[in-house]
Amino acid sequence: MPLRLNDLNRNVVDAQYAVRGALALRAEQLREQLHKDPGSLPFKYVINANIGNPQQLDQAPITFYRQVLSLVQYPKLIESPPSYIKPDAVRRAKFLLDHIGSVGAYSASNGVDVIRESVARFIEERDGYPADPDCIYLTAGASTGVANLIRLVARPGNGVLIPIPQYPLYSASLSLEGAVAIHYHLSEKDNWTLHHDYLERRINEAAAEGIKPTMLCVINPGNPTGSVMPDEDIENILKIAHEHDLVVLADEVYQANIFEGKFHSFKKIRQRLVSQDPKYNSIQLASVHSTSKGYIGECGQRGGYLELVGFHQDVLDQIYKMASISLCPVVSGQVLTELMVNPPKEGDESFDEFTKETSHIRETLRERAQHLYEAFKGVEGVSCYPPQGAMYLYPFITLPARAVEEAAKRGMQPDEMYCMDLLNETGICVIPGSGFGQEKDTFHFRTTFLAPGGDIISDQFVAFHKRFIEKWH
Amino acid sequence: MPLRLNDLNRNVVDAQYAVRGALALRAEQLREQLHKDPGSLPFKYVINANIGNPQQLDQAPITFYRQVLSLVQYPKLIESPPSYIKPDAVRRAKFLLDHIGSVGAYSASNGVDVIRESVARFIEERDGYPADPDCIYLTAGASTGVANLIRLVARPGNGVLIPIPQYPLYSASLSLEGAVAIHYHLSEKDNWTLHHDYLERRINEAAAEGIKPTMLCVINPGNPTGSVMPDEDIENILKIAHEHDLVVLADEVYQANIFEGKFHSFKKIRQRLVSQDPKYNSIQLASVHSTSKGYIGECGQRGGYLELVGFHQDVLDQIYKMASISLCPVVSGQVLTELMVNPPKEGDESFDEFTKETSHIRETLRERAQHLYEAFKGVEGVSCYPPQGAMYLYPFITLPARAVEEAAKRGMQPDEMYCMDLLNETGICVIPGSGFGQEKDTFHFRTTFLAPGGDIISDQFVAFHKRFIEKWH
Repeated sequence: MPLRLNDLNRNVVDAQYAVRGALALRAEQLREQLHKDPGSLPFKYVINANIGNPQQLDQAPITFYRQVLSLVQYPKLIESPPSYIKPDAVRRAKFLLDHIGSVGAYSASNGVDVIRESVARFIEERDGYPADPDCIYLTAGASTGVANLIRLVARPGNGVLIPIPQYPLYSASLSLEGAVAIHYHLSEKDNWTLHHDYLERRINEAAAEGIKPTMLCVINPGNPTGSVMPDEDIENILKIAHEHDLVVLADEVYQANIFEGKFHSFKKIRQRLVSQDPKYNSIQLASVHSTSKGYIGECGQRGGYLELVGFHQDVLDQIYKMASISLCPVVSGQVLTELMVNPPKEGDESFDEFTKETSHIRETLRERAQHLYEAFKGVEGVSCYPPQGAMYLYPFITLPARAVEEAAKRGMQPDEMYCMDLLNETGICVIPGSGFGQEKDTFHFRTTFLAPGGDIISDQFVAFHKRFIEKWH
Repeated sequence: MPLRLNDLNRNVVDAQYAVRGALALRAEQLREQLHKDPGSLPFKYVINANIGNPQQLDQAPITFYRQVLSLVQYPKLIESPPSYIKPDAVRRAKFLLDHIGSVGAYSASNGVDVIRESVARFIEERDGYPADPDCIYLTAGASTGVANLIRLVARPGNGVLIPIPQYPLYSASLSLEGAVAIHYHLSEKDNWTLHHDYLERRINEAAAEGIKPTMLCVINPGNPTGSVMPDEDIENILKIAHEHDLVVLADEVYQANIFEGKFHSFKKIRQRLVSQDPKYNSIQLASVHSTSKGYIGECGQRGGYLELVGFHQDVLDQIYKMASISLCPVVSGQVLTELMVNPPKEGDESFDEFTKETSHIRETLRERAQHLYEAFKGVEGVSCYPPQGAMYLYPFITLPARAVEEAAKRGMQPDEMYCMDLLNETGICVIPGSGFGQEKDTFHFRTTFLAPGGDIISDQFVAFHKRFIEKWH
């Protein structure tokens, strides 16, 4: 008899990952149907607003990045470059290949040394505090770094604090390890702030239940919330982590996507605390970053890094070993990580073009975010904070009681039903709040603001929302 | 207090991965020392014969592959290609980008559809039996496919059969899941054959101990053994899997590295059995392949695929979900997988160059394998099978009793001490048999035969071996 669900690892079966779940699969079905029979649906195309995947929509890659990536793939281009490839791209590719050899060779499991040194310089310039290349691990996107760290502390009795709402990589990674999640809710009424007295209470509650809180996951800028953490909140969180011996895992992949406020890295605030009192040197901090987000948006290239501060060498060795079992992160993704942290400088031949392209992407994202926010603002039963950071809006939606009952009949969460109807009627794919976790009896959805054609999306959304509310009122 | 080993997930701490373990790290130290102080060691350079990483040594990448990879990274090259880029490379890149959009966008979690279709055609041509693109999952190298499948069946009470000796990805993945390994030894005296009556006995023994054998891992061509499985052995293994309801996980990454004999895929033999008796349709077979091996050797690009046959849709959905949690395999690696399974054909502009390059690599590997084998053959206390497949020789070494005692004093396995001394004295890095598992009181090492300068390696090896034996006799 072939295997069935009951024969499988329970932790795998229980894991959920809404960002690529039922809605994303339905979106693919609809896309195929439109391809085969274009007139068969009430819309012309499917809009994937469920996942931050800019180059699937209309965002063009940055020329400098792609020139260097093409050169390292085919070094003959370095010898005889076409006239439209810039000399600084050629110099950079040559420098990298001199150290790497070939992008087709396995690198060290923690990544190429000169690239880790570049990352360290980037962090130092960003924060004003030094970084150690030996504590930087290049990764395939941010996901592998997160999954490995969660696996590392997943020991019976340990618990990992994760925000609600959260990016479901956290809950899924914990499920896969059969590890205990300790939820802490962000306060929606204060634009998704984390109150430190409440966090402390959750830590003590978990301890009282016999769970040892071991790691605290924070996402800043927030996913799905899009909020940006103030300096003093970060300081308070780090002090709590210090007091309770928690490893802080800071997901900072949206650090370059800021529309309002300022990004402060956990590393910078940690080092500031250390400069005030060396006792804070015992805070263990892991921070992840990625080439998939920012204005880069190179999701398919799987580049990223993990910085570890305050860890014992024994633990670093275990992290190295885990990385070594999958041999090495893709080397072209490592190259892209180097380009992210070390962009063209003033005077470099690519500088003007690079600046123009990145400014354009930033402006476009800002406009689209604002446009969508304005559209949501005018709709009854929808409320939403102005865009601050990341790639998402996360509106609160009020759903009629009859819709909630109907969803129960269909075996769905109410906001899941709402999103599924939205997709089936308009082709717009978003993710329900139930996929991220939310306060009981509240409903949300997360939408990216990456898609072009803002008016069409907002008009369709507004029309759908009215229909839905009328239907179930 | 920062985390120490006792605070971590026991399964992580227990996992071992010798291929990138103590010897590989020591090799890196020595390489650095030579870089800083070239005259400080009794050798001029370190030779990494510990890992199949051809492009770290002198193997050049295939021109056609790299041309297409550079074009998909920078599509402007497609519009105005330099004269040395072949038209079929341009056509292929254009075809792929028409379907993919951008290599910087996340693809479907199971990979790009047209590439999965290409893989299916490749399998069909290889085996003479059809393959279903929906049952093919593109992966980042073979490792992620293996790790996910092992995770999938890691359920308390289940056991996974792995060969001894084995590639340590298997034991490490089982350790990480806290899953039970059921070892089955290959018979060295019969060139590492798997005797099916013995396999059946091991299955029954495990069952008698209350373990449910669920999956059977096989590596063909063998790693570390280099042996190639005969047709009838594969048939016997599949019949046993059928009888005992075992999922077969066939690691076939060395299918193109054949020097002697013929490669038969598990899929082909399964379909042949099905054509004789449809009852064999219940055999669940997973097969992994990779762009890191063969004559391609593009290890750093992380391409590969997994084919699944005979699985229930519920189980396939779980495998899709696992893949989706890490979003998608690197897209440039997917492109390389397409190039691996769909090389230039006769009449294509790249065909002659491609044929010349791949023949050269094949011939070089064959010569180096033979050369190293001849060198080992003449050494007393070393015995070794002629190279059949994969990238390795796996000699049996006889070690003096005093060396065994000394190793115990140093807290090492005897062959680990041998390999460490070999590295320290000659710069040649190989992996001891204890890293792969071996019969008690037998000793081996695995060496790749990828390194150039065959005479130097074999002379140094022979001289070291004599010194070692004299020293401890």
